[in-house]
Amino acid sequence: MAKDNDNSNVYIGKKRSMNYVMSAMGTLNEGKPAKLLARGRAISRAVDVGELLINKFAKGASYGTIEIKTESLTNKDGSQSNVSAIEIEIKPGD
Amino acid sequence: MAKDNDNSNVYIGKKRSMNYVMSAMGTLNEGKPAKLLARGRAISRAVDVGELLINKFAKGASYGTIEIKTESLTNKDGSQSNVSAIEIEIKPGD
Repeated sequence: MAKDNDNSNVYIGKKRSMNYVMSAMGTLNEGKPAKLLARGRAISRAVDVGELLINKFAKGASYGTIEIKTESLTNKDGSQSNVSAIEIEIKPGD
Repeated sequence: MAKDNDNSNVYIGKKRSMNYVMSAMGTLNEGKPAKLLARGRAISRAVDVGELLINKFAKGASYGTIEIKTESLTNKDGSQSNVSAIEIEIKPGD
């Protein structure tokens, strides 16, 4: 099973939403589900990307599981921070 | 059926997360599900509120349906803007 090199995972960061839309389209066009992953403030952008895909770019695609969780990050000084995260699965159309 | 005066809906805006946590706790403590609603950049905060409730404040509570959609807003000049929105249902514990 592919893990870190699983190209169906799209990590949402600070770039413009369209970058991530295009990245997910590559996976969906192969008929495979794509997963949008985001933490903290990027969560809003992940939701934008999901809506752009489903309403505009990936015809017939639909939401799969939407998961919300907390991830623990280690800061540079060794302390721990908790940050909210979201995983949005996008299932390709027929 | 209650509609706009349904106090189980918590609209997430620009206040600190704890304000919304407390507001949702009121509903959950009555044994009723609470719904967190947010648009645009407030979506990240809604996810934070959900995690705070489930991991810290509302023991036994769990996520219900998580819905993502697009809402159409009318600007002051009469034009339309689309904005992403999220609805997170929190189910009370036993």
